[in-house]
Amino acid sequence: MFNKILIANRGEIAVRIIRACREMGIETVAVYSEADRKALHTQLADEAICIGPASPKESYLNIHNIISATVLSGAQAIHPGFGFLSENSKFASICRECNITFIGPSPECIESMGNKSNARDIMNKSGIPTVPGSKGAVTSDGELMKIARSIGYPVMIKASAGGGGRGIRVVYREDQLVKNYENAKLEAREAFGDDTVYLEKFIESPKHIEIQILADNFGNTVYLGERDCSMQRRNQKVLEEAPSKVVDENLRKSMGKTAVKAAKAVNYSNAGTVEFLLDKNNNYYFMEMNTRIQVEHGITEMVTGIDLVKEQIKIAAGEKLDFCQDDVKIHGHSIECRINAEDVKKGFMPSPGKIEDLYMPGGFNVRVDSAVYSGYNIPPYYDSMIAKLIVYGRNREEAICKMKRALGEFIVEGVHTNIDFQFQIVNSEEFMKGTYDTKFIENNFKKIG
Amino acid sequence: MFNKILIANRGEIAVRIIRACREMGIETVAVYSEADRKALHTQLADEAICIGPASPKESYLNIHNIISATVLSGAQAIHPGFGFLSENSKFASICRECNITFIGPSPECIESMGNKSNARDIMNKSGIPTVPGSKGAVTSDGELMKIARSIGYPVMIKASAGGGGRGIRVVYREDQLVKNYENAKLEAREAFGDDTVYLEKFIESPKHIEIQILADNFGNTVYLGERDCSMQRRNQKVLEEAPSKVVDENLRKSMGKTAVKAAKAVNYSNAGTVEFLLDKNNNYYFMEMNTRIQVEHGITEMVTGIDLVKEQIKIAAGEKLDFCQDDVKIHGHSIECRINAEDVKKGFMPSPGKIEDLYMPGGFNVRVDSAVYSGYNIPPYYDSMIAKLIVYGRNREEAICKMKRALGEFIVEGVHTNIDFQFQIVNSEEFMKGTYDTKFIENNFKKIG
Repeated sequence: MFNKILIANRGEIAVRIIRACREMGIETVAVYSEADRKALHTQLADEAICIGPASPKESYLNIHNIISATVLSGAQAIHPGFGFLSENSKFASICRECNITFIGPSPECIESMGNKSNARDIMNKSGIPTVPGSKGAVTSDGELMKIARSIGYPVMIKASAGGGGRGIRVVYREDQLVKNYENAKLEAREAFGDDTVYLEKFIESPKHIEIQILADNFGNTVYLGERDCSMQRRNQKVLEEAPSKVVDENLRKSMGKTAVKAAKAVNYSNAGTVEFLLDKNNNYYFMEMNTRIQVEHGITEMVTGIDLVKEQIKIAAGEKLDFCQDDVKIHGHSIECRINAEDVKKGFMPSPGKIEDLYMPGGFNVRVDSAVYSGYNIPPYYDSMIAKLIVYGRNREEAICKMKRALGEFIVEGVHTNIDFQFQIVNSEEFMKGTYDTKFIENNFKKIG
Repeated sequence: MFNKILIANRGEIAVRIIRACREMGIETVAVYSEADRKALHTQLADEAICIGPASPKESYLNIHNIISATVLSGAQAIHPGFGFLSENSKFASICRECNITFIGPSPECIESMGNKSNARDIMNKSGIPTVPGSKGAVTSDGELMKIARSIGYPVMIKASAGGGGRGIRVVYREDQLVKNYENAKLEAREAFGDDTVYLEKFIESPKHIEIQILADNFGNTVYLGERDCSMQRRNQKVLEEAPSKVVDENLRKSMGKTAVKAAKAVNYSNAGTVEFLLDKNNNYYFMEMNTRIQVEHGITEMVTGIDLVKEQIKIAAGEKLDFCQDDVKIHGHSIECRINAEDVKKGFMPSPGKIEDLYMPGGFNVRVDSAVYSGYNIPPYYDSMIAKLIVYGRNREEAICKMKRALGEFIVEGVHTNIDFQFQIVNSEEFMKGTYDTKFIENNFKKIG
């Protein structure tokens, strides 16, 4: 096992990883930007090294400085968390060259899955259902129109290098196709420095269902049930739950086995998530694979009892999974609300600033993963998520009641938050039913969404 | 089910009960003393009624005012929490007369178990092992010496109306017997207004093992495994864990069945705890039954998944237990550290005052039950416990690592706390082994204990 791990991230995921390390007896090295000198991860780690100015490019994305900090501190491994360098295959390669263990899959895996159209091709070859669409990138207007006609409208134009909902256009009619194609390319070039786009059939009213997998370096790959992440705003997840109300035991098994097949197709190791679109007829289609730990991993931990970050570390250290598929049991129900510092009434604009007063809910089966504290100054440079409020109940009804109770207790003063918005979602009839799709927020909160 | 419950308590247990009610859709009425105007329970409840000045006698023990508040608010039931009026049979009787449901056992149960020597008699008659000792109260020096000789030294003199470790004397030699008898009576009179004492054999190096039971009004009584509460300072519990390292499946079953038998002997209903002394040869002796929810109930919730406060409310509302003995499974391991505002170096003297800064640990399988917040002023009139830090692990080792991690994160500034002391306990070799007895703190922390 490692003696010391460097955490190349910030915020609650850095704190989450520090906690796992501490419980495993592993020393931790935090890296921080000048804006994060007083951040919780900086304070909690055994060591902390400043890696540059506030701008992510110059600090949390600064490969050179992060590698230097690792070598300097004597850390044997880097945990990249999510976002930042977590899905940067070049970074993973450099770690390997420097003899530093990257806690995640191989650079080759990241590369294969990182290019979304490439990933689709691999899945198609492995017999995994994908949304009908172009074979790889679309490079001309003519090709575009031809494929769109063959799969039928509505269609979706997506950036190959995409993520976080950027570089995506839905097109309902042929006369809008070319204009949207140009716009998508433009946005993709700006966001990812790569304007490659591909075409897919647009699945109407789908559920976003994703399967958590764990794979060790000895060929053992297991799935840990699904997460329903359909509660999204502009393709950003807002609330997640496990299990999904619409997934039964047979479908879970089928999707789980497919996710394992997807992972095996790229020789995957470590924790990963296979995202599917699920239509109303229980057809599911591979969307993409996230080759890292995810924000919403906690709800899977709550219903399986398995600590995913510890498993990541153990796998990276060369340990075998100490459980098999049959040992994985889903108990009860878990829901996560992402608590963001944002002004819902102003189009969810980020609301950085000083937290003047803070009360975070507690008690039985309430978990808060957060990196903020009373008096903390939320910097404007990063993600606006300030806490993950996670609850567990013996069943979905109990979990919902608990979430309502916990949201009702949560007090953040000094900055705007989406706590009331989450409360509205949790109290909505459609959430109660569990059948909401990825357009629920758009369709029901038009005024504020 | 009740529409509205009044909580006749303060602090974290009041908050705990408010949370359970809210999750069940029941309105809550808090009562508060003038010193608790800004207390969390006062703020969290749907309604709050001031019942008198800071002094417990004039507020939280003021039966008249509490009954008035109940009638005034229209609450149908009172949850007494622990301490204060929770084991006052007169209060439970008055509730009954006023047509208010007392969430706990009948006044007769409380009465039977509240008088400790009486409780021993009942247990003896029901064939439940008790520590050898006097049959009821000892009223003369001659009787005292005779019984002490017959059961053999060391012996223990205990107040019949006792609790919380007061009115107890251990006597090792006959020439110290009468003096200690007089002192115990004096202390009992002062503490409880009743100087009745009884005599027991003193069990050396015992474990304090207690069994949680739940009984409905339809004759269903189940046990929910044990808690090891041997980590005590002057008979006050400091740290508790479930299950106990020294209790195996057979012993658990045997003690559990005995606890159920004890409960049935007094026609018990609602939640209760049967406390046993366990000697090195796995002989166990009934000590007393606590006819209320206990501070340490949370660790049982963690390993069984059963919400004990909700069960209390459901039972009081006349519901049947919706599970049976075979459904109760103990999973994993849970530990609780009581976090007190006290100055360990000054003989654990309470340390009231303003909490200038507060950071409470969080993350996977960490639960904090607390009623304090940053900026809260801990009043000097009540208990010094400010939080219960509860962790869960898949096994004892994992739970211990988690507790160390969580204690390491806990920050309280402005008042003294026992966090470092708890850290020392959790790091001690004997705690790791799990074989510590009730004298562990006394024997190992002489300087500060």
